[in-house]
Amino acid sequence: MRSISLEDAGAEAKDRPGESLAQVTSLRLGARSLPADASPLSMDCNTGSQYRVSLSDSLLSPGSTGLQEAIGDRKALLITTPTVNRLYGAAMRGVLAKTNTVATLILDVSEASKSMELVQVICQAALEHGLNRRGLLLGFGGGVCLDLVTMAASLIRRGIGHLRVPTTLIGQIDAGIGLKGAVNFCGKKSFIGCFHPPEQVLIDPAFLQSLPQRHLSAGTAEALKMGIVRDPALFELLERFAPTLVASRFAAPAGPARELLRRAIFAMLDELRKNPYEDQGYERLVDFGHTFSPVLESALGFDIQHGEAVAVDMALSAAIADSLGLLAPGDCGAILRALKCASLPVYSPRLDLPLCREGLIEASRHRGGAMNLVVPTAIGSSVFLKHREDLPDSLLEGALSRLAAAEREAA
Amino acid sequence: MRSISLEDAGAEAKDRPGESLAQVTSLRLGARSLPADASPLSMDCNTGSQYRVSLSDSLLSPGSTGLQEAIGDRKALLITTPTVNRLYGAAMRGVLAKTNTVATLILDVSEASKSMELVQVICQAALEHGLNRRGLLLGFGGGVCLDLVTMAASLIRRGIGHLRVPTTLIGQIDAGIGLKGAVNFCGKKSFIGCFHPPEQVLIDPAFLQSLPQRHLSAGTAEALKMGIVRDPALFELLERFAPTLVASRFAAPAGPARELLRRAIFAMLDELRKNPYEDQGYERLVDFGHTFSPVLESALGFDIQHGEAVAVDMALSAAIADSLGLLAPGDCGAILRALKCASLPVYSPRLDLPLCREGLIEASRHRGGAMNLVVPTAIGSSVFLKHREDLPDSLLEGALSRLAAAEREAA
Repeated sequence: MRSISLEDAGAEAKDRPGESLAQVTSLRLGARSLPADASPLSMDCNTGSQYRVSLSDSLLSPGSTGLQEAIGDRKALLITTPTVNRLYGAAMRGVLAKTNTVATLILDVSEASKSMELVQVICQAALEHGLNRRGLLLGFGGGVCLDLVTMAASLIRRGIGHLRVPTTLIGQIDAGIGLKGAVNFCGKKSFIGCFHPPEQVLIDPAFLQSLPQRHLSAGTAEALKMGIVRDPALFELLERFAPTLVASRFAAPAGPARELLRRAIFAMLDELRKNPYEDQGYERLVDFGHTFSPVLESALGFDIQHGEAVAVDMALSAAIADSLGLLAPGDCGAILRALKCASLPVYSPRLDLPLCREGLIEASRHRGGAMNLVVPTAIGSSVFLKHREDLPDSLLEGALSRLAAAEREAA
Repeated sequence: MRSISLEDAGAEAKDRPGESLAQVTSLRLGARSLPADASPLSMDCNTGSQYRVSLSDSLLSPGSTGLQEAIGDRKALLITTPTVNRLYGAAMRGVLAKTNTVATLILDVSEASKSMELVQVICQAALEHGLNRRGLLLGFGGGVCLDLVTMAASLIRRGIGHLRVPTTLIGQIDAGIGLKGAVNFCGKKSFIGCFHPPEQVLIDPAFLQSLPQRHLSAGTAEALKMGIVRDPALFELLERFAPTLVASRFAAPAGPARELLRRAIFAMLDELRKNPYEDQGYERLVDFGHTFSPVLESALGFDIQHGEAVAVDMALSAAIADSLGLLAPGDCGAILRALKCASLPVYSPRLDLPLCREGLIEASRHRGGAMNLVVPTAIGSSVFLKHREDLPDSLLEGALSRLAAAEREAA
């Protein structure tokens, strides 16, 4: 009888001639025995994974092998946006020529179109190109593009691998480096989403060269966030270099640019690591700046940069902390100055008292019932305000007036 | 100053007066320090959970507290089907009256309508009823209903909890007790899906009383599956009692009915436990009967019970094993007899050679490139056939002819 390639169920992989199988398979390993009749039957579900966020200087140069190594021999589908495709599509396809990347899907994405419909467009392309469970999505673009790719990767065949190459600052230090993907649903931002770790995130600051300055300022807001809540050295870097870095699009000065990216990425990953699936409670430092900003973005029909809304939220949170006597003297001023210095707003007339209230209610709903407003207590440290009662309307109103004045002053 | 309820970021939860916060927060715990410049930044993602599958005898009786305890004080949404609602809706709502279950969503589900559209109907209801991240979906119905509920629970706010009360035999021993949810997409069965463990699965055999006998036979196929691949005692139970249990709708004999359910559930969970997220390889014993059946179901427009398609697939897999000399003498006959004994088909004229080939190609795609056809080597043990070359067309044709004859004989 010829040898058949098969594998014993429950034992290690070996090729064996068919004749000896009956004996071998009777040695099945690892099966537990049925518990006594009264005991409940239980199931344990554990999983773990690790991924790298790599800083590269020349991801699209002809000699670069980072992407090729990450893809290996797998069938991949490139997903990008019209702008990124126009600027970098040819160079990216040049680098991918040696891989089994079968097609480029160009999606015209925006915060307003970040929906299940676009996720399903990606799923359909994966189906049409015959991606199997080893198949790979390669997301190449900003936060919205990567959100859609992450969602699609989590759903296709119950989860396939994906790589991310973020092209925006916010993508490189925040939206593109975590486990989360999401889309908006029935007007509710990120109501539908997933946790699906990427296999690798490849960061190349060279992509920042083509960004509008406004996007760079907006991205800086997320770095400031990490500086304020946990890394005074990052905050200092931003205080000193934000204007120059935004103006040079992170090309100069090179040392501080790289340190800023690494510090911001590291701080983000270090916070996410504590609760990667957000199943260990609802207190997350990275929620700083993300309590009032979602409703503000929604109210403005997403006609504001995410980072700008985050800046307005951080300024308000700092002013609240100051009014409550929680923030070290002088630090509220330092935070507002740092925001302005990065050309970020500290106030939006649309974020009035009713909208603030709505943001707090929605945040509580999202945070298991607790408000958990992150407020700074000094540069580099922060606390969670747990309950709505700790934030009387009069206090909110006072903080808003103060910021309106600060914004007028800057103008 | 009044005491504010807040929590130090990074340290344990305490209520502290605002004054002492600056000192306390400087003691932040758990932050790592930035690695040296050349090192890559890495992220670890680990998670674990456990759930129970509980057998209850009177889930809907007025004194029953199982569901109430499982829901606790959370806001819940009941999702069911028109048939289940007609039969058990009032009794279920009676039991739920003491909980914060805010609405019943009745979905007219079928394998043909198991789509993202229906998942989004559930998501929209959850949004409209203001379910927060502690919110709960309660799926009450057969495998399709529970698939949709699992999918929706995995997506809403990036994953909320769900309970399952399966009302079909296949739901109680197979489709309803694992981590997986899925929908069909562009004609491809379960192309889109998730892994999302339930919080608890509550099984009550009383629901089987209202099932058509054909559904009970179909469900028995999944129990036979576990008996054939790993549990000779379960196989024997089915050989002896399947006809009586199907006829009595699992009411009598009570002892064997309960043992059968417990053995089948335990075997399923014990297999799933080895690789709950299917990220540890593509060899799964529970795939027995699930290689040719998906394409058969598709080709028949899902106008066949899932368990019937599984039965046809198991018969073919057994015949293949027999033809290859892998199966102990006499066991192929025993398997075919057990299937017929449970009123299950062993052959479908629609499953011809081309469709078998298609099934093998699609299974390989789903199993990371390896065919991994599970075939029995004796009652209670099995192996994986890894490669397509091990299954020449002539052998497949021979097995099909033999089963056609066996089916004619039974008719």
